[in-house]
Amino acid sequence: MRKPKIVVLGAGYGGLITVTRLQKQLGVDEAEITLVNKNDYHYETTWLHEASAGTLHHDRARYQIKDIIGNTPVNFIKDTVISINKETKKVVLKRSELTYDYLVISLGAHPETFGIKGLKEYAFGITSIDSARHLREHIEYQFAIYNTETQKKAERLTIVVGGAGFTGIEFLGELGNRVPELCKEYDIDFKNVRLICVEAAPTALPGFDPELVNYAVNYLQNKGVEFKIGTAIKECIIDGIIVTKDNQTETIKAGTVVWAAGVRGHSVVEEAGFENMRGRVKVDRFLRAPGHEDVYVIGDCSLVINEEINRPFPPTAQIAMQQGEVCANNVAVAIQKRGRMMTFKPEIKGSVASLGESDAVGVVYGKKLVGSRASFMKKVIDNRALYMIGGPSLVLKKGKFKFL
Amino acid sequence: MRKPKIVVLGAGYGGLITVTRLQKQLGVDEAEITLVNKNDYHYETTWLHEASAGTLHHDRARYQIKDIIGNTPVNFIKDTVISINKETKKVVLKRSELTYDYLVISLGAHPETFGIKGLKEYAFGITSIDSARHLREHIEYQFAIYNTETQKKAERLTIVVGGAGFTGIEFLGELGNRVPELCKEYDIDFKNVRLICVEAAPTALPGFDPELVNYAVNYLQNKGVEFKIGTAIKECIIDGIIVTKDNQTETIKAGTVVWAAGVRGHSVVEEAGFENMRGRVKVDRFLRAPGHEDVYVIGDCSLVINEEINRPFPPTAQIAMQQGEVCANNVAVAIQKRGRMMTFKPEIKGSVASLGESDAVGVVYGKKLVGSRASFMKKVIDNRALYMIGGPSLVLKKGKFKFL
Repeated sequence: MRKPKIVVLGAGYGGLITVTRLQKQLGVDEAEITLVNKNDYHYETTWLHEASAGTLHHDRARYQIKDIIGNTPVNFIKDTVISINKETKKVVLKRSELTYDYLVISLGAHPETFGIKGLKEYAFGITSIDSARHLREHIEYQFAIYNTETQKKAERLTIVVGGAGFTGIEFLGELGNRVPELCKEYDIDFKNVRLICVEAAPTALPGFDPELVNYAVNYLQNKGVEFKIGTAIKECIIDGIIVTKDNQTETIKAGTVVWAAGVRGHSVVEEAGFENMRGRVKVDRFLRAPGHEDVYVIGDCSLVINEEINRPFPPTAQIAMQQGEVCANNVAVAIQKRGRMMTFKPEIKGSVASLGESDAVGVVYGKKLVGSRASFMKKVIDNRALYMIGGPSLVLKKGKFKFL
Repeated sequence: MRKPKIVVLGAGYGGLITVTRLQKQLGVDEAEITLVNKNDYHYETTWLHEASAGTLHHDRARYQIKDIIGNTPVNFIKDTVISINKETKKVVLKRSELTYDYLVISLGAHPETFGIKGLKEYAFGITSIDSARHLREHIEYQFAIYNTETQKKAERLTIVVGGAGFTGIEFLGELGNRVPELCKEYDIDFKNVRLICVEAAPTALPGFDPELVNYAVNYLQNKGVEFKIGTAIKECIIDGIIVTKDNQTETIKAGTVVWAAGVRGHSVVEEAGFENMRGRVKVDRFLRAPGHEDVYVIGDCSLVINEEINRPFPPTAQIAMQQGEVCANNVAVAIQKRGRMMTFKPEIKGSVASLGESDAVGVVYGKKLVGSRASFMKKVIDNRALYMIGGPSLVLKKGKFKFL
């Protein structure tokens, strides 16, 4: 009897949880599991703001996939997904093709640039290990050049962050620690540095409690961050950005522009013809693509509505991991034809945004936290993600233990 | 009675030795000593190849001038020398003017580009702390970008060093250690990296014993360096160099071009109208500029003929420091009108070129050395320069103790 083929696309939070749980739930003879990922490592997407600022080495934020899936046989293919044909049940990779009986799409997100001109060309993203190293080095390079020029270019020391959401705020928090180090390294007066946060929405950290927002904004302002709230980026140009507020247009020269204002689902999802909103598939309660019982979509490519406010849950690692557990169960049930399919319902334990090494704001189990207690909880959350995927040994290897 | 004014321009090896020795030889009432330097720190010019490659932090290669001259009163002025008027005995600085009775010119060198087109615009030099940080970060930035580009640009990983003299060879030696680290940091296969040394002369390390040259070239080839000897750089362009050999022209694409093929005296010396050859003044036996008994010129701005071969001694830290001692004595004798002027005669103790952290080639007291013994001697020489200027405490603070 031919073993059913499960293909999991992407080894992010959702994909890795799915694979590790499938390994537990299915016997070796019950299915053939294939995991496809662009790199041979998994990275902690939620830690990339640190690697990008240069406050955490990128090797601390990634680990080898084979170290996680090594125990029971899973085919691992390091390749890039080009397209999915849901009719013929084929996945085209850059160097080969796969057929599947069950497909799990956990490909993650792409930056959402909302069609703003120049962002793709000139702005940095916080999206991968490669992009993190690139951004870290780009910023450092600007500082390194500054004093070599007779005619000093102030914009070399200007960093614009587009978006005061989770990623933008966390990245600025790290810059608050990193920039003084860079100033020392390159003999630069901090007063020549500008850190600017531009946010189109009427508030920073939309969705957060106003008290927490206030704390975060004050904290970052004390670290030297200028906030331009209710200000839209109209265009990103080679040496800065053009913003508008109240019909006033302003050009801000900046050597570094970082776009951190949102994500959309992976383009492969759109191109495959699944019903989607900005690359995200509104999955059924079992996490399947509508009309495709053999295709599960989890993580940033999936869309789950928060019925309390009738808006989608923001894509988070927390949700992706919870989906991975449900997805693995449901695929196993479908194959084994016993047990019960699980309905996915996010259990939001909390949300903490770090403000650098030693401060944070957030809500954990309904309780508002700021300062060192919030920062402590943030590290607990970070370590929990490691624990969920790789158990205690991964926590020991990559965990964050510099508690206050 | 008005105290004679001694003005020392430049706090390199020669200038700092002059000032520290003058402090010892002259009483506080005998003269007013002013030291002018562009930065408030001294840097070890002979260590800049390490800071430029990123194998030694630049802070290890510099120290505060006030820590050296702090004991007896010396006016220290942090400023840039614009011009010298030897008739009115004035020195124009960027922000002020000075008059002198005795002038010591120890301004160091500028790169000699021999009029090769594009070098000033596109090539890096190994000339200062600023340039070292810039070059270090430039190379790292190329590695950081490489994997972010879908269409890989091989030239990002190509480093061309123009000149196989002392600096070029020592810099390549450091790259031999540094590049494998960069490959690891940025997930790059070393085989994609090219390190190319272009030298117009018919040999690397001209002036060195052929046996030592051979050792050095073999050692660096084993570390991946390609040598193009007898090959002239015709032009440096924005993305590489154009070279000629035997009337054949070749364009080599390179993300980094470093020009390390020689120096000339500081431009202020030429502009002041002293008789000079490429910015270097052929001083009299007391180290004075011809026709100017009140002007001493030492270090890279001075020219001393090696009578054995009837060619100038190459400018080195060793000679600059020996000149500083003689210069200080002679200025003191001129002021005190007692004692004897000293004649300068270089005493060449040896010359060792490092090939990275743990290897080197050279001659010490007439004895040829290679390998770890040469590397040991190189560190002894480096520490001796610290000892000469700042005594044992400076050696303890900045010395190189990682002996094999």
